[in-house]
Amino acid sequence: MTESSKAPEAAAPEAEAPKAGASKAGASKAGASKAGASKAGASKAEASDAGEPEVGSSDDLMEKVVRLCRHRGFIFPSAEIYGGFRSTYDYGPLGVNMLRNVKNAWWRAMVQERDDVVGLDAAILGPPAVWEASGHLATFTDPLVDCKNCHERWRADKIDGVCPNCGSHDLTEARAFNLMFKTHAGPVEDEGHVAYLRPETAQGMFTNFANVLGTTRKKPPFGIAQVGKSFRNEITPQNFVFRTREFEQMEMEYFVPPDQAQKWFDYWLSERMDWYLGLGIPADHLRLRHHEQSELSHYSQGTADVEFLFPWGWDELEGIANRGDYDLKAHAAKSGVSLDYFDQQTNERYTPYVIEPAAGATRTMMAFLLAAYTEDEVGDEARTVLRLHWRLAPYQVAVLPLSKKETLEPLARKVLKSLQPHFMCDYDVTQSIGRRYRRQDEIGTPWCITVDFDSLEDEAVTVRDRDSTEQVRVPLANLLTELRRRTGEE
Amino acid sequence: MTESSKAPEAAAPEAEAPKAGASKAGASKAGASKAGASKAGASKAEASDAGEPEVGSSDDLMEKVVRLCRHRGFIFPSAEIYGGFRSTYDYGPLGVNMLRNVKNAWWRAMVQERDDVVGLDAAILGPPAVWEASGHLATFTDPLVDCKNCHERWRADKIDGVCPNCGSHDLTEARAFNLMFKTHAGPVEDEGHVAYLRPETAQGMFTNFANVLGTTRKKPPFGIAQVGKSFRNEITPQNFVFRTREFEQMEMEYFVPPDQAQKWFDYWLSERMDWYLGLGIPADHLRLRHHEQSELSHYSQGTADVEFLFPWGWDELEGIANRGDYDLKAHAAKSGVSLDYFDQQTNERYTPYVIEPAAGATRTMMAFLLAAYTEDEVGDEARTVLRLHWRLAPYQVAVLPLSKKETLEPLARKVLKSLQPHFMCDYDVTQSIGRRYRRQDEIGTPWCITVDFDSLEDEAVTVRDRDSTEQVRVPLANLLTELRRRTGEE
Repeated sequence: MTESSKAPEAAAPEAEAPKAGASKAGASKAGASKAGASKAGASKAEASDAGEPEVGSSDDLMEKVVRLCRHRGFIFPSAEIYGGFRSTYDYGPLGVNMLRNVKNAWWRAMVQERDDVVGLDAAILGPPAVWEASGHLATFTDPLVDCKNCHERWRADKIDGVCPNCGSHDLTEARAFNLMFKTHAGPVEDEGHVAYLRPETAQGMFTNFANVLGTTRKKPPFGIAQVGKSFRNEITPQNFVFRTREFEQMEMEYFVPPDQAQKWFDYWLSERMDWYLGLGIPADHLRLRHHEQSELSHYSQGTADVEFLFPWGWDELEGIANRGDYDLKAHAAKSGVSLDYFDQQTNERYTPYVIEPAAGATRTMMAFLLAAYTEDEVGDEARTVLRLHWRLAPYQVAVLPLSKKETLEPLARKVLKSLQPHFMCDYDVTQSIGRRYRRQDEIGTPWCITVDFDSLEDEAVTVRDRDSTEQVRVPLANLLTELRRRTGEE
Repeated sequence: MTESSKAPEAAAPEAEAPKAGASKAGASKAGASKAGASKAGASKAEASDAGEPEVGSSDDLMEKVVRLCRHRGFIFPSAEIYGGFRSTYDYGPLGVNMLRNVKNAWWRAMVQERDDVVGLDAAILGPPAVWEASGHLATFTDPLVDCKNCHERWRADKIDGVCPNCGSHDLTEARAFNLMFKTHAGPVEDEGHVAYLRPETAQGMFTNFANVLGTTRKKPPFGIAQVGKSFRNEITPQNFVFRTREFEQMEMEYFVPPDQAQKWFDYWLSERMDWYLGLGIPADHLRLRHHEQSELSHYSQGTADVEFLFPWGWDELEGIANRGDYDLKAHAAKSGVSLDYFDQQTNERYTPYVIEPAAGATRTMMAFLLAAYTEDEVGDEARTVLRLHWRLAPYQVAVLPLSKKETLEPLARKVLKSLQPHFMCDYDVTQSIGRRYRRQDEIGTPWCITVDFDSLEDEAVTVRDRDSTEQVRVPLANLLTELRRRTGEE
């Protein structure tokens, strides 16, 4: 049907190079495969309130997580009622909560809890000048070939000279295909009105460098951080939400005096590894891979990838690069605006070096899901449990009246109302309490609050822990304090 | 230079109709004028840490707020070092904080604190089928004319038959100009690969209606909420961030049994008015304007706009519409997928009606800024103060060591670290304490914490209130509790 839906499964895993300012060679990308799209594919079942399907018993972790994402409302194929749209995904009720949590956890660590980093939210649409200066217009390309027999198009470096669709060897010469999405802004569709969708958020930090310097009291070393959508017209999206044409990035540009660049590069490698570990990625599924000299982009003084052990092998979550003064110099030259920093204390003028930790939000969410997915037994009963960090779970708390009987509802709703300002809460009255615990385990809810008939008398509720399944009785007056204690954020 | 930079100022204010599924007649839009762009225009001053310029003394509120936004780092023209880009804006260190706060306050009220609304984050890129079904491809247009003399293009309904650029009356016939941005997804630029940037987030909720029903235990009445970027290729962007080609929406589709539609329409009118009032829009600057029968889109059973008294007059913040079953029926017909709801309890099958409160995040932020801007006097000294609700202020807290002397820094940093997990905090050591209070007033920081030499002895700090300027001494041990008390969120 489309070039991507015919993409060869075998071509999927590829080594990830770090995100590029100027050359595709150094570009990190995100995408989604036919595998993901078809497994999470269009279910045309009629809408009803019959409840969600159970997750099956396949041994394949990837398949299980993709299926759980689809069936529990984390991630849907976009425009699914129209058969999906080119490996694009929508984040459902649970997915949007979790993706927000991933982005907010990053923002908290990178902006809120620091005083040397400020935020930015730059536009997605931009003029050609920005992408000329950054080098994307000239070199942000993949090699594209056409099959002369069936007319499908492929990434030349992925197919070994054979069309994966029809098997023909009769291919065109490879030509450079630019990965930026192009459109026109304004009522005239000519070259003067061309706009591009940004392929990375980073350039917004460079073009606003002087604006940020001039409106804050920051001086190097300091950083500018941004979270937002980027777009790359991948020839072959793959691996569910790992590589998609529309994706979300979490990038920070840290501007430093040139002679401090190595120190801060090492600092950010360590900080960023700690972030993933602190939110629950197991140490044996996380590694830092330093690029070989031959892998480095021409501007890079050093690059390392934070890699996660995905079901298809080690692959990139984040690239951390010492970009030198490449970007600020390139924009200064193109725009004619000085992007130097003048230090009034030392009377020195210099172009800062940039250390860039650049992570993918959507693929990071996927890594957290894969790492959290567990099957174990409670008593004799098998269960699926997402052992997500409380900060990442779609709901932190589920409030469950023990029975549907109306006598419990007023108190249960009162408990819900008291917790909603502080936590994302689910409220569930359907089916047995055991079924409801299983359901909350499967979506990673750390704490279930059960309101039972005793609660009406003793003004206390049962708090159940997802991982240990331990239940303790807590007076309502202490409930918020007890939950805050469990988060470690009293 | 561009069609928008030549747009006539006089044509700026226009009556806003509510956001449309199917016809431009019912479309709410957001944009920015040349006025805003030039006032906040490119300052090519060299970057330095010389500190931010002061806001001037013009009497014009709009001009003052636009200037404050530029000079304090709320909002910059996008790609400013290249002369800006077609009325597109970037949100700087303070702006990104405030815009996040506006969106989070909406999410809190519409999703987190309710159990009848779930979230969604759908893709920006979408296939033509979605926009054929919604009616946007056929009718989401503005009338466009060319001046035959100077070849500029204009919105016919804004210029009274005279070219605002050269004064010529020799114009072409008006033709329909579709406001959707068009691009191509995949490595082939033909009709089969066309994709559109969504002009509203609403359609993602309709195309995922069955997915949400099937993966949650929600049943009508329930809602699906989304916050995200939308894109409209306005012929004439205007009024700073009020009407821009790239903008951000906060939309919720509330699905109800048809016979309850009027009740829920009334309910949401009241809820949404309360949201703006609760966050500090004065009652005399907010009104509800019911559409006349003649204004209604063909699908609408009733529409009302929440309007704010902008400097140019009453204009729309949000449209609240009873869309009937138009959207679900249209997508069911086009896709062949039933979007009915089957109620197992009553054995009834029906297509829900939809009540849609659809707000613009960026223009709402602008309204909060305009409403908060105040000039008053403290003692004999004039000050500018943004009387923002604490939830919306870019920083809730500023930590200020009284002097730059190193003896105060360890304690001041300890205070900062203790508050950062709970609040967005600024930390400022430059210039006199009076100057720093003025600076925090001007960006709306509700509470300043001053660490002085006594603090080293008595383990207490001074908490200063922005609005009253009242200062009280608070023991460090009680500081977090005291600040939480002031927010009303103990």
